[in-house]
Amino acid sequence: MTTQSKQHIIKKDAHPFDRTQIEGLLIKRFFYAPAFENYGGVAGFYDYGPPGSALQSNILNEWRRHFIIEEDMLELDTTCITPAEVLKTSGHVDKFSDWMVRDTVTGDIFRADHLIEAVIKSRLDSDLQARGSKLDVTEQTLNKKKKLKSLAPVKLTDEIVQKYHSLLAQLDNFTGPELGHLIESEQITSPETGNKLSTPIEFNLMFESQIGPTGQLKGYLRPETAQGHFLNFNRLLDFNNGKLPFASAQIGRSFRNEISPKQGLLRVREFTMAEVEHFLDPKSKDHEKFSSIANTKLKLLTKGIQSNGQSEILEIQVGKAVEQKIIDNQTLGYFLVRIYEFLIKIGIDDSRLRFRQHMDNEMAHYATDCWDAEILSSYGWIECVGCADRSAYDLTVHSIRTGTKLVVREPLKEGIEFEKNVPVFDKKLFGPRFKKDAKPIEESMMEMDQERLECIGNELSSTGSSKVKVSNGKEYELTSDVLKIEKRTFKETTREFTPNVIEPSFGIGRILYSLLEHTFWTREEDINRGVLSLPPSISPIKVLIVPLSGTEVFRPIIKIISDKLRKVGLANRVDDSNASIGKRYARNDELGTPFGITVDFGSVKNQTVTLRERDSTKQLIGSIDEVLKVLEDLCFCKIQWEEACERLKEYSGTQDLD
Amino acid sequence: MTTQSKQHIIKKDAHPFDRTQIEGLLIKRFFYAPAFENYGGVAGFYDYGPPGSALQSNILNEWRRHFIIEEDMLELDTTCITPAEVLKTSGHVDKFSDWMVRDTVTGDIFRADHLIEAVIKSRLDSDLQARGSKLDVTEQTLNKKKKLKSLAPVKLTDEIVQKYHSLLAQLDNFTGPELGHLIESEQITSPETGNKLSTPIEFNLMFESQIGPTGQLKGYLRPETAQGHFLNFNRLLDFNNGKLPFASAQIGRSFRNEISPKQGLLRVREFTMAEVEHFLDPKSKDHEKFSSIANTKLKLLTKGIQSNGQSEILEIQVGKAVEQKIIDNQTLGYFLVRIYEFLIKIGIDDSRLRFRQHMDNEMAHYATDCWDAEILSSYGWIECVGCADRSAYDLTVHSIRTGTKLVVREPLKEGIEFEKNVPVFDKKLFGPRFKKDAKPIEESMMEMDQERLECIGNELSSTGSSKVKVSNGKEYELTSDVLKIEKRTFKETTREFTPNVIEPSFGIGRILYSLLEHTFWTREEDINRGVLSLPPSISPIKVLIVPLSGTEVFRPIIKIISDKLRKVGLANRVDDSNASIGKRYARNDELGTPFGITVDFGSVKNQTVTLRERDSTKQLIGSIDEVLKVLEDLCFCKIQWEEACERLKEYSGTQDLD
Repeated sequence: MTTQSKQHIIKKDAHPFDRTQIEGLLIKRFFYAPAFENYGGVAGFYDYGPPGSALQSNILNEWRRHFIIEEDMLELDTTCITPAEVLKTSGHVDKFSDWMVRDTVTGDIFRADHLIEAVIKSRLDSDLQARGSKLDVTEQTLNKKKKLKSLAPVKLTDEIVQKYHSLLAQLDNFTGPELGHLIESEQITSPETGNKLSTPIEFNLMFESQIGPTGQLKGYLRPETAQGHFLNFNRLLDFNNGKLPFASAQIGRSFRNEISPKQGLLRVREFTMAEVEHFLDPKSKDHEKFSSIANTKLKLLTKGIQSNGQSEILEIQVGKAVEQKIIDNQTLGYFLVRIYEFLIKIGIDDSRLRFRQHMDNEMAHYATDCWDAEILSSYGWIECVGCADRSAYDLTVHSIRTGTKLVVREPLKEGIEFEKNVPVFDKKLFGPRFKKDAKPIEESMMEMDQERLECIGNELSSTGSSKVKVSNGKEYELTSDVLKIEKRTFKETTREFTPNVIEPSFGIGRILYSLLEHTFWTREEDINRGVLSLPPSISPIKVLIVPLSGTEVFRPIIKIISDKLRKVGLANRVDDSNASIGKRYARNDELGTPFGITVDFGSVKNQTVTLRERDSTKQLIGSIDEVLKVLEDLCFCKIQWEEACERLKEYSGTQDLD
Repeated sequence: MTTQSKQHIIKKDAHPFDRTQIEGLLIKRFFYAPAFENYGGVAGFYDYGPPGSALQSNILNEWRRHFIIEEDMLELDTTCITPAEVLKTSGHVDKFSDWMVRDTVTGDIFRADHLIEAVIKSRLDSDLQARGSKLDVTEQTLNKKKKLKSLAPVKLTDEIVQKYHSLLAQLDNFTGPELGHLIESEQITSPETGNKLSTPIEFNLMFESQIGPTGQLKGYLRPETAQGHFLNFNRLLDFNNGKLPFASAQIGRSFRNEISPKQGLLRVREFTMAEVEHFLDPKSKDHEKFSSIANTKLKLLTKGIQSNGQSEILEIQVGKAVEQKIIDNQTLGYFLVRIYEFLIKIGIDDSRLRFRQHMDNEMAHYATDCWDAEILSSYGWIECVGCADRSAYDLTVHSIRTGTKLVVREPLKEGIEFEKNVPVFDKKLFGPRFKKDAKPIEESMMEMDQERLECIGNELSSTGSSKVKVSNGKEYELTSDVLKIEKRTFKETTREFTPNVIEPSFGIGRILYSLLEHTFWTREEDINRGVLSLPPSISPIKVLIVPLSGTEVFRPIIKIISDKLRKVGLANRVDDSNASIGKRYARNDELGTPFGITVDFGSVKNQTVTLRERDSTKQLIGSIDEVLKVLEDLCFCKIQWEEACERLKEYSGTQDLD
């Protein structure tokens, strides 16, 4: 893919990137479309059509292979509806919220941080224009979409420009009251009306519902799949024979009732996630396969850099980043590399991918360290994968709330010896003396803490007696003839601990949209039609079969080719419409179909077909069986196009056909 | 699978089927488990663990191949949250409900029809006992689970027995008030307390929520995926180049807030569905591939048989059933066979599968004919796939509600000619005479219906004038010098119509559970451990690799085998624990793993391994490469075990190892 991405960047210079063009293509060819359009639409909901569904399903299959199969993870499928109590315990009921402001006249609602960001960016743009720079098309579209009034060019002081840039870099850190203060101090008003805005109000992002007919059991739609992993921890541990580390994985729908969803697939209210919860011993966060990836270089935007209001990138080997404690531990580092490898494999452009560390105030309530894989698209740098160290937070809170321990018990090879104060009664004297009170006295003393026992022991040896308060509420005087406190040696043979969790969490829709932007370009000779240079493994349809015309004579050959391709699992499509071959190929370039087979009279006579490659439009020729074998190897990534060119002859009649 | 199923039935006779045993196995090995158990559980929610997730995902892949790929369907992925207006239009807000009754003292809630059914069945059981029959274990467990008081054996009159059987066969047909009447007339009370029950109250089964921060947009979780197909009809038609027939398909989560979910995976509140909407011309419901399946025999329980209160089965070729109008049309018949083939392919027992036709009152509000594939398990005959003819219902109601036409336009080869009355004005006289009123008069007359125009024409020719009421509210007298009504000939070149829809709809959880029951059995020699005879294509893990012991010397061979299997996509697992080989295999028989490879010192010395088949426990021996090739062919269904036995030698040391 690297070559294809490079090609794209070169092409992009020739024809400036235009988001309306790609979004037009994606909706027209039904990759996806706004849901409920006939009903006027509801913001934040999208439906995937045939090519979008196939693309998503191919990405998920690749994810399954890359993570679940290669890393031997335990797959789960848990429910979306979750009782309120679970999400109260996990902290989501209290803390999973955003700040919204209202237009005090119209009642329109905005997400406070997004509004401030948009206004400040537009002021900076206006300043840039005043200083003589031009905005590119994308920026203009962006502002138009955000319904920001075009500001007349107004030059800001250098001091304010500096302050604004620093604000933008830190905005994710701000609390609600701080956002409210900013709105006042920067005189930010409702974007369309100019009306005053309300103070920020907290809004919980979970969809609420009622379970069962009584209306008494409140539930939420899960905002992440993670809680389903944590609640099943004991079963998973058991399935893994009680051993750590292991990872569970789940692909499923999650739901967030965003305040004002925008930006197409990037901020939606219902989305498919793929989440891994890697459970490990907090004492050893090393990873057994770390050495295999330690030399991989990643582009990091650390929290240190950001807290200075800067945005330079540190390109560093992961091994060194862990050594220098930039990345907290090996397992976190290992997953950052695996995330990187996955994104590159499916076709994300390396030069538009970075890992940004969360700042301390910005992290979710459960996380202790977090890195986002951010992908650059025309919407800016967008978080597409989060990789958080959730520590022991979730397992601990659920254990405490339910009384069901979510822990690992590890047999200790060499037991740990320790001393303990133990109450020793003279049974012959004690029973008869205290009669029915003997039992509660004994029980209370067995549960007593070490310091209290020490103290009683001291009293007994110095004064010969001690007063002891017991669970039945009464106090008894015990004397040294019935009770002694002895120090005895014990040995602990198991260690019990709550595992920590490293969580790579993928937003599939965001990755899918970024990928489409990264692989989109237009040819010099036909700038109105787009090409999607999707890798063959990911593209919705692998092969387009194009007969020279709709005539009967080609049908048997088409059927043979189509059946053979289907048998080896390669999705293909026949286009025998009346359009010219060139036009039929162009329509399929829009769908990202990487290869085409042309069936012509040569096929009938000599059993040969031509093979076309989407990006170069180069054509090769060979016997049907040769071409199908090459195709299979290409689609299953066994060979590259260069090798196909060595195995088949170049087709010279290209000009006539294409 | 047929042989395996037969085997199972034979075994079943030896050890009576015990549901607690299989449910124990499924939960212990984490095929699935009740969700939120640590929190006390919530009825109707289940989580799938690693083997259950893999099994489900294999079933869905098979479904995708069998339907989407083989039938060239258009895949969709639409949202679960749906605005209320959409489901109001589709009829779900008003009609998607069940009848519930309350215990008038405790307030406990029951689903009325299920309660009546359970009570009547237990009365029939008690009668059977009184007549000297014994209930089998399953029935006893069933009653226990339903918390029905064990009735003392009470003999009923033959008349009442007859009435009860007839009631049971027709119960699905009853309305709420009719259920209320039954409760009174049959003196049915609250099962645990014996208290009086309330009259039945309607309860809508959809989960409700609010979309967005204003709280003004009501939404529901979809109760089926179908509406997402209908709303996208125009985009799908466009994707299919405007041509009928075509089918869309979707796999996804749906939600139903059941009144009192019971019966494990069979009645849950959140579940995975796979739905097809096959759009076709109502004038031709023939199917182009019908002849290929016309000879397949299906077991049918027709509505005629049921309305007589009977339950005999009609086994008939589908071709004949369509000819005799038992099944309404070819496309419905085609899909019944494809459903049948799918269920048999994944391992459902042919003898426990039938197709039951819905009775007229029983059908969903949108359906005109409907057949359920019902599968027999210890819970009785359960609907696992519905196949409904939804006619043009949904597309029509959405068209009317939104004003967006959901229709097909078909160019007519030979146009249809027809005559029409047309008003013809003498412009020279008409304009000057009526001035500014001329336009509204002309417009009103252009929109007038044919009969009215005919009538005006008759008046004009008989009396020379006619009074015409116009859209501006005034009446004008028009005379025959300015207006004539002429008959003219027109030609229609396109036919516009709303397609009909045939909908096969699969409840994946119900199929999965039935499959587990059908493939479960116990060996003579070890009745406490179950075996799941899942077909290799569906089983969660294909191969268990078992080294003779945990010693280092076997590791390289294990790694080679495991990597080679993974490369060809065969999920495998290594068990190098200390348990005996026999025990390790038995544990994996519980997971349905069809094949095992034993690595021993012969493997180190001669590069040979043995291959074990789960159901027969027979072992073969061959070189590693030979065995792996045979395994690949077995798992991808290229050969049966019998052929494997011809290709590899029988292993004689079986007794020592197993």
